[in-house]
This record gives sequence, structure tokens and C-alpha cells, in this order.
Amino acid sequence: MQTAVLLAIGDELLSGSRHDINCTWLASKLSEVGCLVRKIEFIPDEEREIIEALRRWVGQVELVVLSGGLGPTHDDKTRQALASYLGVPLEVNHQAYNKIVGRYSLSERDAVERSRSTQGAIPQGTSPIHNSKGSALGISFRIDKTLFFSFPGVPVEFQAMAEESVLPLMYQGSARRLSLFVVGWAESLLKDKLAPALKRKDLHISILPSVNIIELALSGEDKKVEEVAAQIRSLVAEDCLPADCTSIPQAIYHEGERTHWTLAAAESCTGGLVGAALTDVPGISAFFRGSAVCYSNEAKIKILSVPSFIIENKGAVSQECAAAMAEGARRIYEVDLAVSVTGIAGPEGGTQEKPVGTVCFGIATPKETRTFQRQFSGDRERVRKRSLAVALEYLWRVLKEVSV
Amino acid sequence: MQTAVLLAIGDELLSGSRHDINCTWLASKLSEVGCLVRKIEFIPDEEREIIEALRRWVGQVELVVLSGGLGPTHDDKTRQALASYLGVPLEVNHQAYNKIVGRYSLSERDAVERSRSTQGAIPQGTSPIHNSKGSALGISFRIDKTLFFSFPGVPVEFQAMAEESVLPLMYQGSARRLSLFVVGWAESLLKDKLAPALKRKDLHISILPSVNIIELALSGEDKKVEEVAAQIRSLVAEDCLPADCTSIPQAIYHEGERTHWTLAAAESCTGGLVGAALTDVPGISAFFRGSAVCYSNEAKIKILSVPSFIIENKGAVSQECAAAMAEGARRIYEVDLAVSVTGIAGPEGGTQEKPVGTVCFGIATPKETRTFQRQFSGDRERVRKRSLAVALEYLWRVLKEVSV
Repeated sequence: MQTAVLLAIGDELLSGSRHDINCTWLASKLSEVGCLVRKIEFIPDEEREIIEALRRWVGQVELVVLSGGLGPTHDDKTRQALASYLGVPLEVNHQAYNKIVGRYSLSERDAVERSRSTQGAIPQGTSPIHNSKGSALGISFRIDKTLFFSFPGVPVEFQAMAEESVLPLMYQGSARRLSLFVVGWAESLLKDKLAPALKRKDLHISILPSVNIIELALSGEDKKVEEVAAQIRSLVAEDCLPADCTSIPQAIYHEGERTHWTLAAAESCTGGLVGAALTDVPGISAFFRGSAVCYSNEAKIKILSVPSFIIENKGAVSQECAAAMAEGARRIYEVDLAVSVTGIAGPEGGTQEKPVGTVCFGIATPKETRTFQRQFSGDRERVRKRSLAVALEYLWRVLKEVSV
Repeated sequence: MQTAVLLAIGDELLSGSRHDINCTWLASKLSEVGCLVRKIEFIPDEEREIIEALRRWVGQVELVVLSGGLGPTHDDKTRQALASYLGVPLEVNHQAYNKIVGRYSLSERDAVERSRSTQGAIPQGTSPIHNSKGSALGISFRIDKTLFFSFPGVPVEFQAMAEESVLPLMYQGSARRLSLFVVGWAESLLKDKLAPALKRKDLHISILPSVNIIELALSGEDKKVEEVAAQIRSLVAEDCLPADCTSIPQAIYHEGERTHWTLAAAESCTGGLVGAALTDVPGISAFFRGSAVCYSNEAKIKILSVPSFIIENKGAVSQECAAAMAEGARRIYEVDLAVSVTGIAGPEGGTQEKPVGTVCFGIATPKETRTFQRQFSGDRERVRKRSLAVALEYLWRVLKEVSV
């Protein structure tokens, strides 16, 4: 098996001002093509630290990829660090840089030309890597068994350059990987439930919980992966997303294709998160008509026709209000099915009786309207995310019950 | 200055199945209290690799924090690695674990008890760290000048434990840090514009671009940071978010407090992103009434009263439709100001005349309705995010013009 180390260069990664995207993305791609990533390191914009990392990994792995530090400014140190490490000067590769300049429109070329002496320079004797999305050249060279690549840190540039130059080299027939997504379980209870499958030693199972959904990532021999996946699916049949779906909105789209039911939402505390999550799926416009975000009581009354006595007597956060919101959305969007969410996300607005985290849900179908209430812990962001997750789960489960 | 190294343990980080959250979060916190993070490393669930990292950093930095690998399952290797590194056995710390068991309700205690032999064990002679959010004990010990902490990788547990045990130790009066947020500039043009400020060598300026907004993170001596911040503010006065605002929704809230204007939105291609972004700000309910997500043409006509001849003659993605949507939202939510977005996010739906990425915006005020059209590049996610960013920018700029 080929092995790799990924190095992300940048002070902003070590001060926590910026998350790394490139290394995780490339790790996932390398893992798909059967290359094992042994280490990911974030390194400051310091020549000494970059050189130290290069020295440590040369000869240890087949591939070292550096992200970042190739820009035109004073705090970009990667180019000089590579030259110092190799003991050669930097020199502008005019031929490769002309190809980059040529990609720009006439009005932009001035700015690109000004970077020629920095972004067009690579250590003597190394190979330039063309950048189809930006103006800094990439750099590649080999020492013994180790192949080095250095790309700009801008994700769209990094990813395009890695796709074109690194991944084709690494492909060598992949181990089977398969993920199952299980909805609505606490991690510890799911582990107990799946114990017979999880204790298998002959394949690797990672358990990756997110809000209200747990990914089980299986990897190993093709046949064994299929076998364990089938075993898991039979243990939690009602809670597994269908194959090829990696999120509940995708599973809702899947059920939409089966039932041809039209959908809408009415949102208060989620403020548009339900609509945004559903419309993240391309093609959802075939079923999803919209979401009435009614944050104020007036909007609930006027737009969704929630009776004002419900708000006065039961409050805007009540199952009665959730029912009226779902029915209102079903009516104004003229759909088969509508879901509603109304709750107290905090930090203000909680009471003794209805503390922060109280959230009511409704779902209206041609036959009936159902409601329920949940109590979530955590801050505003967490309450909103959990409310979103439960609303989507609920929508999905009701849609699954529809027979056509 | 104190220095730190952060180690995230987990195969899922190296296969790209999971992003690290903990290290970036802790790096940001440590940076606030004046502790320099020298390195962040992602390490597989392998005893040998964990021990190698501990050996490399002991004596080099004041603080080493490990995230992950303390769970009850076979692939959690951190606890054993620490014991092997220290050359001592693992032993259950009953007193510390009883405190954890006591936090759970009677019905949950069985499950927690079953983990006593793993999650309650720490290397002999080390100190247990209480976990107020989960069931695995943390571990702490000192070797020479280096203090080691090992916490579970679950972000809510990791963060609570680090807040309680690590950060108070590291606080030592921080260097001044200050961020400015500049809206609507391309990075290269902004760099030219701010050249006089950016070339200062006596303080550190990081440039951190996001969608339509660029963060300038200044750090250094108090007086110099203030001076350069004032210089930048004067160069891009119209485009700088007010102090204490780190996002456009927060700046919109700020203008809402000044003007007391009420706000609403009408969304098509953004599907609720505008409402979700605004309601991310606590207290926004004082101004924001809601957003009509009208994904289908029928909903635009019925709910927002967009004239059907506009959709027939000009299309749903047209400035005429955007104007009618904004006016409709202003009317149904009874607000002072409404913004609208309608566009083609793709991958389907583009035409020769209106390719994918064509997005129209409208804004309706008591005085007038304005519209404009933009052409974005990139995939569905990027078009939606840029549409959101431009709608928010537009809303903010118009609100800033309002005199009270």
C-alpha cells in the first residue's frame, strides 16, 4: 500500500482563524484510491519548520503534499523553504508562467504580470505544475522514493491541481468502502444494538456521529463489507437511509420520486434552515414548493392563518400552533405534505414552563395532522440544528409511510 | 511566550471521513490568551504513532493536548499509548469515575457502569480530569516543562474539559488581536487598496477571505494595532463592518437597532438561506419578521402575488420577478424593507440566455423598489452561497442609507 503525508502551511491554521479544508479533502480522495494517509500536519509560515517537516518525511512515505504558502506576499514562505531544502536558487519558469498569464483577460493581465517574479518562480530543477484556477505555479520534485507536490492553499486551486496531477498517479485499485447512515439513534444505544456486526475483526468500521444521524463507514474486502452492511441494514431497517443517500434531504428526494407527493414547510425558530437543507438537493423543485418562514406572531397569523386565540392561549411555541402552521403551509403552498417547527432557540425567551430548547413540530397530510414536542439542550446553534434534524427526520418517516 | 502542540487522534481524520473541529477551536482559544500553537498534527489510532509524537514534543513546548481515542471501543488507543509511553499500567480511578456515574440518571447508569473498566481507567500516577458532558475520564500529567492533557474527541466534551482545565492555566495577558471585516472586495484589489497599511512590518496582518467578505486579522502591540485598524477603516469606510460585528447578519442587526426598520425576505434559489442566516443572530426577532421561500412559480404567484404575466414573459429569474417578490414580501410581512433573490443555482435549468449562475435581486423600501442581476460561476453550492452573501450585503447597504 502506498502511503502519504499531507502538510498544510499557514499561521492562520495555527491561530485557529481558519479551518483546513484541503488536507481532509485530499485524504478522502487518497483513501478512495487506496493510498494510506499516515499523518496530517499544520505548520506555521516559517521556513525552518517547513524544512524540518520535509526532512522528517523524505524516504518515509511515497507522497508528500504541501498546501499553502505560495502566494505573492511576505508571509508566504513555502517556495523559499523548498529551495533552501533542495539547496538550489528560485528561478522564474517563464514558459509555465506565460501559460498562466494567457488564461487571464487583457484587463487582468497587469495584476498577474506583477506576480511573475514570485508566483512564477520555482526551485531550480523542479517541475512546474500548471494552475488552471489561479496565478501561482505549483511545484513538484522527487527525492528517492518520495514524490513531493506543493500547491496554493486556495481550495479551488489546490483541489483542481491535486485532481490533475496527484490522484492519477496514486490510483491502484481501491479497497471497498461503503457508508451506511442511521437516523435517530444515540451512539451508545446504536453500538449495543449493532454489537454482533461491530465486533467483527476482519473489516474496519468507523462510527461517525453527527446531529441525529450516525455514519457507519465500512472498509475491507468487498464480500465482507457487503455481508456486514446487509447485517446492519437488517438490524436497523427502519432507520437506515437508502443506498446512495448520504443525508436526510437526499432520502426525502428519494421518497419524493417514489410517491410524487409535493412538500412544503412552515418555520419559526429554524428561520429557513429546513428550506435551505431541502433545496441543497438538485432537482428537489420537482416536489418542494417552499417554506413560509414566519418568525413573528403577526406573520404566523397573517400568512399561515394561525388563529390568534391559539397564540394568546397556548403560545407560539405549542403543539396547537405547530399544527396550525403545518396546515397553513399545506394550504398556501397547495401541497400534499407540510412540516412545521416552532420553538425557543434562546438565549432569551425561555420560561419556567417552556425553557430554552422547547420545540414543537407538526406535520399535515391529506388525512390528518400530527404534532409532538421535544426538549433540546445546548446553545442557540445547537437547538436550531437539532430542530432542523428532527423536522427532516419526521418529514422523511411520514413520507416513507405513504403507499402509492 | 508559552507554546503548545495539539494532536488529534483518529483514523477517521486521516481517511478524510471527518473534519477536525477541536484543534482549530483550541488553537483559537489559546491564541486569544497569548499561547502560540507551533504545530497541529492528525495521528492515526495506532499506539506506536501516538507514542512517537509524545516523545518528539516532550520538553519542546509547555503544553501538549491530545483529542480523541479515549472511547470504550477497540479502535480507541490513546489511553494505552499514554500508559506505554509512561511505562506504567492502566488502573481504574473509582473515585473520579463514581463522580461521572453520579451525573447520569438511574436508567442510564447501567450503560455507563459497563464502561468503567475502559473509560474510568487512567495511567497509574496521572491525574483524572472530570468530564461534565460524557463518560470518559480525561488524563493529565507533567514531564519536565511539558504539561500533557488528553481529552475525548467528542467536541462538546473536549471543549468543556479544555475550558475548565487548560485555558485557565495558559492565561497570561494576551497580545492585542483585532479583526476587521471588509465586504464586497476581491482579495487582490483589496490588497492594492490597503497596500500602505499592509506593508507595515511591526505587526502581523493575516488576510482571510470568505464568500464576499474578507477578514483582516491584526495582531501585535496594542497601540500599533489600533493605529493600523484606523488606517484601514478610513481607506474602506463604506465596506467595513462596525466594530464587534463579525458577520453581515450581525451588522444588519446593528442597523436594525439604529433604524428600527422591520425586515423580511422572499427567496427562491437560496431556499431559506437568507432567513437562516439572519435568524442565526440572537434577538433578530425584534426586526426580522420572516422569509417567504417560494421555490415553485405557483407559490411566487399565489403567496407573493407575482403577476403571472411576468413569469410567462420575463421568467421567474428576471429583475421584474425579483421586484415583484420583494414587494410581495414587504406587503405580506408588513415590513419596511424586503429583499428578494431568484436565480438558477444549477446544475439543471440554465439556458443560452440565462446560464446557470444567473441570479436576480430586488429590494423594496417605502420609497422605491430596486433590482439588479449578477452572474456567478461555480457549482450549485457556490452559486447559492454567493447569492446569499450578495443579498445580505445589499440588505445591509440599503439599511445603512436609512436616516432616522
